Amino acid sequence: MTRTCYTGDVNLEHLDQTVTLYGWCHRRRDHGGVIFVDLRDREGLAQIVFDPDNQDAFKIAESIRNEYCLRITGLVRRRPEGTTNNDIKSGQIEVLCRTVEVLNPSVTPPFQLDEDNLSETIRLTHRIIDLRRPVMQNNLKLRYRVSIEARKYLDSLGFIDIETPMLTRSTPEGARDYLVPSRVHDGQFFALPQSPQLFKQMLMVAGFDRYYQITKCFRDEDLRADRQPEFTQIDCETSFLNEEQIREIFEGMMRHIFKEVKGIDLPNPFPIMSWDEAMARFGSDKPDMRINLEFTDFTELMRDVEFKVFNSAANMAGGRVVALRIPQGGEMSRKEIDDYTQFVAIYGAKGLAYIKVNEKAKGRDGLQSPIVKNINDAALEEILAKTGAQDGDIIFFGADKAKVVNDSMGALRVKIGLSEFAKAKGLFTPEWKPLWVIDFPMFEYDEGEGRYFAAHHPFTSPKDGHEDLLETNPEKAYAKAYDMVLNGWEVGGGSVRIHREEVQSKVFRALNIDAEEARAKFGFLLDALQYGAPPHGGLAFGLDRLVTLMTGSDSIRDVIAFPKTQRAQDLLVQAPSPVDEKQLRELHIRLRNPIEVK
Amino acid sequence: MTRTCYTGDVNLEHLDQTVTLYGWCHRRRDHGGVIFVDLRDREGLAQIVFDPDNQDAFKIAESIRNEYCLRITGLVRRRPEGTTNNDIKSGQIEVLCRTVEVLNPSVTPPFQLDEDNLSETIRLTHRIIDLRRPVMQNNLKLRYRVSIEARKYLDSLGFIDIETPMLTRSTPEGARDYLVPSRVHDGQFFALPQSPQLFKQMLMVAGFDRYYQITKCFRDEDLRADRQPEFTQIDCETSFLNEEQIREIFEGMMRHIFKEVKGIDLPNPFPIMSWDEAMARFGSDKPDMRINLEFTDFTELMRDVEFKVFNSAANMAGGRVVALRIPQGGEMSRKEIDDYTQFVAIYGAKGLAYIKVNEKAKGRDGLQSPIVKNINDAALEEILAKTGAQDGDIIFFGADKAKVVNDSMGALRVKIGLSEFAKAKGLFTPEWKPLWVIDFPMFEYDEGEGRYFAAHHPFTSPKDGHEDLLETNPEKAYAKAYDMVLNGWEVGGGSVRIHREEVQSKVFRALNIDAEEARAKFGFLLDALQYGAPPHGGLAFGLDRLVTLMTGSDSIRDVIAFPKTQRAQDLLVQAPSPVDEKQLRELHIRLRNPIEVK
Repeated sequence: MTRTCYTGDVNLEHLDQTVTLYGWCHRRRDHGGVIFVDLRDREGLAQIVFDPDNQDAFKIAESIRNEYCLRITGLVRRRPEGTTNNDIKSGQIEVLCRTVEVLNPSVTPPFQLDEDNLSETIRLTHRIIDLRRPVMQNNLKLRYRVSIEARKYLDSLGFIDIETPMLTRSTPEGARDYLVPSRVHDGQFFALPQSPQLFKQMLMVAGFDRYYQITKCFRDEDLRADRQPEFTQIDCETSFLNEEQIREIFEGMMRHIFKEVKGIDLPNPFPIMSWDEAMARFGSDKPDMRINLEFTDFTELMRDVEFKVFNSAANMAGGRVVALRIPQGGEMSRKEIDDYTQFVAIYGAKGLAYIKVNEKAKGRDGLQSPIVKNINDAALEEILAKTGAQDGDIIFFGADKAKVVNDSMGALRVKIGLSEFAKAKGLFTPEWKPLWVIDFPMFEYDEGEGRYFAAHHPFTSPKDGHEDLLETNPEKAYAKAYDMVLNGWEVGGGSVRIHREEVQSKVFRALNIDAEEARAKFGFLLDALQYGAPPHGGLAFGLDRLVTLMTGSDSIRDVIAFPKTQRAQDLLVQAPSPVDEKQLRELHIRLRNPIEVK
Repeated sequence: MTRTCYTGDVNLEHLDQTVTLYGWCHRRRDHGGVIFVDLRDREGLAQIVFDPDNQDAFKIAESIRNEYCLRITGLVRRRPEGTTNNDIKSGQIEVLCRTVEVLNPSVTPPFQLDEDNLSETIRLTHRIIDLRRPVMQNNLKLRYRVSIEARKYLDSLGFIDIETPMLTRSTPEGARDYLVPSRVHDGQFFALPQSPQLFKQMLMVAGFDRYYQITKCFRDEDLRADRQPEFTQIDCETSFLNEEQIREIFEGMMRHIFKEVKGIDLPNPFPIMSWDEAMARFGSDKPDMRINLEFTDFTELMRDVEFKVFNSAANMAGGRVVALRIPQGGEMSRKEIDDYTQFVAIYGAKGLAYIKVNEKAKGRDGLQSPIVKNINDAALEEILAKTGAQDGDIIFFGADKAKVVNDSMGALRVKIGLSEFAKAKGLFTPEWKPLWVIDFPMFEYDEGEGRYFAAHHPFTSPKDGHEDLLETNPEKAYAKAYDMVLNGWEVGGGSVRIHREEVQSKVFRALNIDAEEARAKFGFLLDALQYGAPPHGGLAFGLDRLVTLMTGSDSIRDVIAFPKTQRAQDLLVQAPSPVDEKQLRELHIRLRNPIEVK
């Protein structure tokens, strides 16, 4: 009883043939004395017809309920005119059942597969049923196509997949580690890897030249909508190439994936923008280039205006004043503007100044705004000129510390840019818009902790000529780091790494990691760099996020077969769970609050 | 400065061309005023010549030491006659250096790359240098080819890679789990998966039809030479196929891998043998079919012989007497026979009876043996006839409980079969000899614990018609389980799974798992089986072991980039290690013996 083809694939080419199909009863309809079953498998649906003339099959068909697992043998025939369905591959045909076997019946499922608005708790508890829904089948199939096409591309360029350890060493830098107590070594722990970063660098030092791995990484952080305790990276590293050559390889990979998986041609080459420019124009290091809106900087101009909100921001250390012109935005209602004002408050903005440009020709009288009275004519003129404002536009302003302005006005740009308004007004280009953001700063200063942190990670190479700045002027040092941004999502990030021990030591010092601590935590890296380490660099892609973007899913949980909830639980198998006292004893640990031990 | 090709790949086709190569100084020789550097990369070596006429390059070359990382540009020319090397791809040419750049110097490595007999501690501590050795580079490259060819084959048959969780639920059945304390859920733990078994079954129930994954599995067991705490499985599952169809797919995969990776044609189809037959003929469920030696069973015959060792074994419940004839083994010395006697003692055998067949024609006088005096003529005659003994042979005997006989005589068969003696005498066929061993028993009885255990795992389907035996006569129940054996190694194992809830419950009962415990541990499985679970089955291959076999390595540690020692330590990064008290507090655990906390 060999399957002829997937149920979803049976089509006109099988006309008049006897086929054997396997699948599940998606729905059953009785109509005019005939029973119709939509049989479903991972490739789709086919309509099976049970004629009462075939008594044996008909009798079984009467017993069939949703989600029964079936084998069907029958004759492929054309659907009667008017009953065809062009939305599915099998829509021109139906299968007249000759024999049917119920391979396994089903109790009534906890929900119907086409039910909308199911709670996530229900879906994750009954994940098996949830995964039967065609959208989930398609998500995981697309995820697979992305990973296998990435492999094919990397394989063709001589990259080799080398596995790195899952049980490795805790380095309390960056995110929180998941720990694994050692049974053999009392009081000691493995950590699950936050990324294979140092191992892939070791592999370059060992001479493997081109490495990749599609692998799980772990971070024990508080979860947000787009985070999971375990997530998957397409992790890559190569030796002997410079920044440009590395980016060329990996934008090629993304083009290959989009072409093969979605039939879409991404631009060649990808546009490139410096981090400085991205922050200046969009207030973001991952600007969504589908949105045709950008900042105009007026920090200089506002130093002398009367309006205190603007001049104080313009004159403070690290302050910034920007305008965001929304073409044809003058029609926004008071209510909409109020909503946007509340929205930017989330990002710390204390207000949202604006000017509606009703009729430029009328000068000051043609402007509608609570703030223009405090802005002199020359400044007003420059605002209108530099933003390129036209009658009917609105101009929003942000004025504060640069971080607040960038965060709030950057978010406002995205909020408006993705709105129906923007789509209607042509302010949004519905295309795939990749972008490289490059030349990140080496360090970010943490005011709270009073020290520098690595903007990318501590193994990132400074730009040529910036090495001395590591010690003299760290905030001016830029890095050979690059992010691949797609439609406003950071889908990948990487850098050229440090391959000389003395540079690595300088970076550790800039990060306040003294020689002893560096040796204790990263001794193996410092050692490795002394044995003729090659110049190398790489990139890591977030597979979950990329597939979420490609499938248009609401959540990364929709592209992972068995995800954790936002409370880091697996509701299907009920993990985590209490364990036996014996297990704890073997691991030389005890609970602090031992009430729950069974 | 783009690389022309890998250093190891430069050859006669590049003659008279200027090439740019990157790599490491494998060795430097000064000879007749000229400096020779063997430049090495992952693909091999090329000879670089530094002529003193090129002063700049020559001066740099004088400073070059082993393991310096270099870029070389130079002219490819023929090696002078008599200096060619046919062992390497680049052996007909050399590169006359035009320019050389030291990309990174190297301190003196802890050992030379061609040093033999390095201790494993040294090798694993300096793994970066160890991995530069061509044998290790080739091992990991071959490992990659195996995994990518497995993927290509499975992809071509519609299998899709779906990731299953690493943070999952502890089920204290089988091996010991690695546990991961939960920070969010006080007193609860995740476990790292021992295999994705139940998840892949869930994926079949969810309708994905064909699944694979090359994934890490974890077992916290005491380590042997061929075990690691984390190991890699090629894990596969499919729906709607029977045993034969599943085996056909996966022996096809193995043929594909051997053909693509090693250019070797494995037999088509693979031979098949029942577990009963394998145990009867070879005393092993993974017989090495290269060895042309097998048991002859004399349990029946020995019930009545005078020799007590034989008749007591033959008459005990579960006893067994076998002969192992070694053609031309009569020349074995007393010393060799003593050594074999000590060898079988490891497996519990109390002695090693033998008969040397010097001259059959002389009857009893032509036999040399400590035991023939206690064996009557008829029995002797039958022994000679049934074993097919010829003059010059030796026949060994095992007589004890079947397990002792099988273990000891099975091991003796392999010991002799792999010896130089066997190779010289044609008792060993140096070919790749795969074999399916099928029809395993469902259960093994553990005398110590006084209960049955699953021989494969508790989700294995009984053979058709054996369902009732689960309750009436468990030891007579056989399973739809199969192992793929290659040259005496179990490289893969699998089964058709139970897809009906009532059968699964019966098996749990046979294993002394009551309904409550079954629900607590495997409730999600029992639930899933009720929703129209399809018939399904699969297989898992041990990638580490397969690659060890294919590379002829001594240890699986030689086919893993960063393995653990037999004390479960990573000597490169020094894991496991003590962690901060703060980390423990966040995880709601404390150490039992808190001395070592820093």
